[in-house]
Amino acid sequence: MGIDKILRAFQSEVDAALEDSLPPADREPTRLHEAMRYAALGPGKRIRPVLVYATGEAFNTPIARLHASAVAVELIHAYSLIHDDLPAMDDDDLRRGRPTCHKQFDEAIAILAGDALQALAFSVIAHDTRSQITPARQVEMLRALADASGSAGMAGGQAIDLASVGSQLTIGELEKMHLYKTGALIRVSVKLACLASGIDDLDVVTRLDRYAQCIGLAFQVHDDILDVEGETAIIGKPQGSDSEQNKPTYPQILGMQEAKDTAQRLCEEARECLVPLGPAADTLRKIASYIVSRDR
Amino acid sequence: MGIDKILRAFQSEVDAALEDSLPPADREPTRLHEAMRYAALGPGKRIRPVLVYATGEAFNTPIARLHASAVAVELIHAYSLIHDDLPAMDDDDLRRGRPTCHKQFDEAIAILAGDALQALAFSVIAHDTRSQITPARQVEMLRALADASGSAGMAGGQAIDLASVGSQLTIGELEKMHLYKTGALIRVSVKLACLASGIDDLDVVTRLDRYAQCIGLAFQVHDDILDVEGETAIIGKPQGSDSEQNKPTYPQILGMQEAKDTAQRLCEEARECLVPLGPAADTLRKIASYIVSRDR
Repeated sequence: MGIDKILRAFQSEVDAALEDSLPPADREPTRLHEAMRYAALGPGKRIRPVLVYATGEAFNTPIARLHASAVAVELIHAYSLIHDDLPAMDDDDLRRGRPTCHKQFDEAIAILAGDALQALAFSVIAHDTRSQITPARQVEMLRALADASGSAGMAGGQAIDLASVGSQLTIGELEKMHLYKTGALIRVSVKLACLASGIDDLDVVTRLDRYAQCIGLAFQVHDDILDVEGETAIIGKPQGSDSEQNKPTYPQILGMQEAKDTAQRLCEEARECLVPLGPAADTLRKIASYIVSRDR
Repeated sequence: MGIDKILRAFQSEVDAALEDSLPPADREPTRLHEAMRYAALGPGKRIRPVLVYATGEAFNTPIARLHASAVAVELIHAYSLIHDDLPAMDDDDLRRGRPTCHKQFDEAIAILAGDALQALAFSVIAHDTRSQITPARQVEMLRALADASGSAGMAGGQAIDLASVGSQLTIGELEKMHLYKTGALIRVSVKLACLASGIDDLDVVTRLDRYAQCIGLAFQVHDDILDVEGETAIIGKPQGSDSEQNKPTYPQILGMQEAKDTAQRLCEEARECLVPLGPAADTLRKIASYIVSRDR
């Protein structure tokens, strides 16, 4: 199956699961619930849930066992975007061609919608009693999700990002920032799928973690490239907006050609991690290639 | 033992446990960690952790089993205060006589510190492997904490509060707002202690939940009374600030005398819930009385 078809299939799965997990828009407090739904169900690549499903597929895990993890990582991602877009943070008015949450609603509701989406992410995993994941595994999953979201993960990366605006980072510092900011949540997507699949083989888990690290960085490098070379209409935000905000980027530090080579190298390393998994990991391979070739 | 001594003892316990759980201020990203510590370790009544410990005491639960719950509820409370104080929300410059988090640091760091404290709350319970709480109970605890924090709990209550500014609420609507906004976290403090104590007796758990509901409301009624009658130097915020912000309060809706009677009635109902627990619940009784007699 082609990557576009695979992505669409997994995107439909997670959208249905998100719909089931989010509070209905007509339940009180309605404005908060509308904002949560607006942010979580809006257009997006759903790359983190896709990774959950694709990792589970490599172990032949029934998809019903993966929904809670897929929903949880997408909810954490959605909440982080709401808060990142706030005036005090990146101050963005548009997100994928639509008004950002605080523009569509207001700042107070946007802050609360982000807060409530984070709580919901933990709730969804903790309520997942149908999928027969053992409680011990569930605790491990909740632990991994909490650590990936907090100050040693995504929120920490956002703090490093804020501190780096306007300063000249080394390539090592830029990499560290991204390993926290986007890498932690991408890695935990793969890890949650391993836990939900009951995989204990340390070599396999370590390889998949390395795979996730590589594609997480590759994703970011390619995003920076798209910010320079992509078209506004396709990438959904003004082209060149990162450099305008004086944010450090890979092309700026490495030069465009070296940035492209880096993305390719990371993609190849990610694919090498998958060798022992054989054909079962084909979708994970396709995702690695997609991440450095996508046009949005 | 007098209530002041009990409170101080439990406050010391939770402060030491918070110190152990929070990332050190010199760990990267330092500014984020400083802000998290500033907000979570600042002065406060620690009423939620006190309830965790006092409920555990009623079942003779070793205190080491209660620390994670005590820390978790205080972290959720601390994060909610940071976000509530933001300019887009209540826009408060002072909290207990100190600059609020966004005044001491900045808005972006305050948003992230709140986000990271929420994640840390879940992390602390999920990492609590020393206290021999079963994984099944831990999942129940995480579920309860997530639900109490999200849109069906604290964050939902804050959204209802925002929507109510400037509008004339009925007493029922005001009560509903507080049951969400502060009640959910107070109830879950007692519930977490029951779970950590391994209490399955449904009658006992239901009674304690009713106790928690009553003191949660009583706490709020008494806060509203203090806002009118308390002294700024003691309550730590400008006296009359709620009515100035046009927030609905109990004295405003009920009149002062009826508000005071309501607080007393709730306190008595709370104490009645404890009858079958005998002398073991004495600290819980003292807390109920303290809540409606405190001067700050």
